[in-house]
Amino acid sequence: MNCELISVGTEILLGDIVNTNAHFLSRQLAELGINVLFQCTVGDNKGRLLTALDTAFGRSDLIILTGGLGPTPDDMTKEVCAEFMGKELVLHGPSLKKIEDFFALKKIAMPESNKKQALMPEASIILENANGTAPGCIMEKDEKAVIILPGPPKEMIPMFLDGVRPYLKKLSHETIFSHNIRTFGIGESAMTELVSDLLESENPTVAPYAKNGEALLRVTAKAGSKKEAEALLTPLIGEIKKRLGSYIYGIDLESVEEAAVALLKEKKLTVAFAESCTGGLCAKRVTDISGASSVFHCGVVSYSNEIKHKLLGVSEESLEKHGAVSALVAAEMALGVKKLSGADFGVSVTGMAGPESDDPRIPVGTIFIAVTDGDRLYLKKLATGHSGKDCRDYNKFVSASNALNELRLCALSYPEKRSEGTDIREFTGSFKEL
Amino acid sequence: MNCELISVGTEILLGDIVNTNAHFLSRQLAELGINVLFQCTVGDNKGRLLTALDTAFGRSDLIILTGGLGPTPDDMTKEVCAEFMGKELVLHGPSLKKIEDFFALKKIAMPESNKKQALMPEASIILENANGTAPGCIMEKDEKAVIILPGPPKEMIPMFLDGVRPYLKKLSHETIFSHNIRTFGIGESAMTELVSDLLESENPTVAPYAKNGEALLRVTAKAGSKKEAEALLTPLIGEIKKRLGSYIYGIDLESVEEAAVALLKEKKLTVAFAESCTGGLCAKRVTDISGASSVFHCGVVSYSNEIKHKLLGVSEESLEKHGAVSALVAAEMALGVKKLSGADFGVSVTGMAGPESDDPRIPVGTIFIAVTDGDRLYLKKLATGHSGKDCRDYNKFVSASNALNELRLCALSYPEKRSEGTDIREFTGSFKEL
Repeated sequence: MNCELISVGTEILLGDIVNTNAHFLSRQLAELGINVLFQCTVGDNKGRLLTALDTAFGRSDLIILTGGLGPTPDDMTKEVCAEFMGKELVLHGPSLKKIEDFFALKKIAMPESNKKQALMPEASIILENANGTAPGCIMEKDEKAVIILPGPPKEMIPMFLDGVRPYLKKLSHETIFSHNIRTFGIGESAMTELVSDLLESENPTVAPYAKNGEALLRVTAKAGSKKEAEALLTPLIGEIKKRLGSYIYGIDLESVEEAAVALLKEKKLTVAFAESCTGGLCAKRVTDISGASSVFHCGVVSYSNEIKHKLLGVSEESLEKHGAVSALVAAEMALGVKKLSGADFGVSVTGMAGPESDDPRIPVGTIFIAVTDGDRLYLKKLATGHSGKDCRDYNKFVSASNALNELRLCALSYPEKRSEGTDIREFTGSFKEL
Repeated sequence: MNCELISVGTEILLGDIVNTNAHFLSRQLAELGINVLFQCTVGDNKGRLLTALDTAFGRSDLIILTGGLGPTPDDMTKEVCAEFMGKELVLHGPSLKKIEDFFALKKIAMPESNKKQALMPEASIILENANGTAPGCIMEKDEKAVIILPGPPKEMIPMFLDGVRPYLKKLSHETIFSHNIRTFGIGESAMTELVSDLLESENPTVAPYAKNGEALLRVTAKAGSKKEAEALLTPLIGEIKKRLGSYIYGIDLESVEEAAVALLKEKKLTVAFAESCTGGLCAKRVTDISGASSVFHCGVVSYSNEIKHKLLGVSEESLEKHGAVSALVAAEMALGVKKLSGADFGVSVTGMAGPESDDPRIPVGTIFIAVTDGDRLYLKKLATGHSGKDCRDYNKFVSASNALNELRLCALSYPEKRSEGTDIREFTGSFKEL
């Protein structure tokens, strides 16, 4: 089955936003064994949208449009598609009710213009929007399907996964199953070298990717059923696990924080964060995981030295002698927040995120991470190597990732101690810099 | 002048990479006053690439292709374009020399296949590749131009800026200038209704967008110079400011936190956050702004009630009687973190981010926000209206945005008090729920 994607939105043509919808949908369709032969982007313009539809309908069995379902006059995707398919727009009661409830809940009077979002093409499959006011729909004609979805990814993605994916699964005969093997602490090329011979394999296939400073392997099998596919994938995954060991933090997990939280839950352990340069990102990422409250006690974002001392008990001497960005202060922060919170693990991050460094001796991208279980202390010094004018977000993200991974490694071996830890009784003010 | 972009690469159609080239080129062309009416992506396939070229040539004056200039057999963009334009490929001496030098420099023997990269369409303008082996080129025919550029952004971007931009500047006579008017606290449709008559205007134009729970207006002028454009835009922006008032947090700013931090800096004010459901996101977003350290004292992510009481001094009675998600606890958190940190403003967020609610009386998406200057207290109750299984990130983001906007509004009127504030002396344990 051949598919064409049409993204509608002048903001894409003007370069205001990156078209991530086409990327998401292309990957999803590839996994469903559906060939995407063309992607096309047009503005909010009736004539050009009709041209694009006409071209696409002539060469594809399936057309998926995203964007242009809003309440404003320049949103016209639904109207133009209905006209092209020769379908009337009729008021869809349940959708109108959902939109009215949405505004009622927000205690806002519903603008007239939002009513238009409840007008849907007759005899079409309506796709509910759990995260916005614009429903989507599936229109069928001449054994072809035209699917329209809202533009905002937070509305489009759930609508695709819940409404469209099951519909397409029925149409597509061969299926493709994938697993993502997520690693941390090893580069893409180093990882690739460890599995280079496996990359030759044709079914299942192994493909390396780099993403947000992490390397991952995607293993994919084509088969008639999920069961057959898994039978192909299981031995391959086993072999990869043998080669990559504890670099692997999970399979089909979204992030290292997801792995850390799952592990803490499983072992009934808790954590508290003391963050300087990451500015709350560790706490934010852990609390992005639903149910994190059972493992996360508290976080302290101690940006000023005063707070580091007052709240976390970092000694003024350490701050003066070694500076806020030092192994010693990282260690005292971790011990301080563990004491303050009573959590099983205290984790700290202090560093120079950039773009400017306020201390000539400390280059941008220098990060110190400490994890303590109250008994031993695990310290890591990081040089991210990023100091350009856009380095700040990257340095914060990678610092947080490393802190979360150190937490994961500590929890992994708990109650055993990791070898590289230091007994905190040896850890005094005279503690040496890393 | 109308332009069409054609991205060539099966890896884009498979969703392996995001098409950032189209984004970069679209923005560049918009600034040059060149209208991009279509973007198209095709795989490394001769037939489909010819179809795309033919369609584009029929409706556009300028076609820019990216990708498919590599040395491997499936790289065919240059060959197919030359055939389409009726041009022979001839060996380009300087390009061959550059490729040979490139490999000599790396002390690698040059693969035969790389010679193919020095074969260029006759009578075309050659674009040097400072960062790779594949040159690009500009082919002219029937007063139309077809430009081919390499796929890797680190090769494509410099080649465009150095070689293509100057060429296009000569062709395009007018330029486009835009400003983004960012608002907070008003929906896209409500905002649009306030300026609906202005949307008719043709030059300058006004276009509404919704992004991350915010509405923004993009005003754009076509003119011969930046000065002329600004002369067209200034009165329009003035009129929009009059209509949208303090809903506007900034023009050409990236985010509400950027506005808040700038305002605090300007007025030499400081802030501390006490976060529950946002889990550190307020602190994270403020510290994303370089130089935030001058206005940000500290953040406390008080996830457990124990920490709310121990660290922030929230009374156990309030937690028991009203629950952690209540106006009273939000108020006590804000007062607590202000006292703890000594900052000018204490800001708190507590709520039910979801996807599950652990209190049947409190629906997911219920958020309480408090801001205090130590003298008055500003409380806001929010119902985000999002409770789907993917609501968590959205609810956290929108809650943080609202807290940051309340902080902005308090700083805006400071040292005057906002009308809706409550004297904190009236604020006792008997404080009424909102």
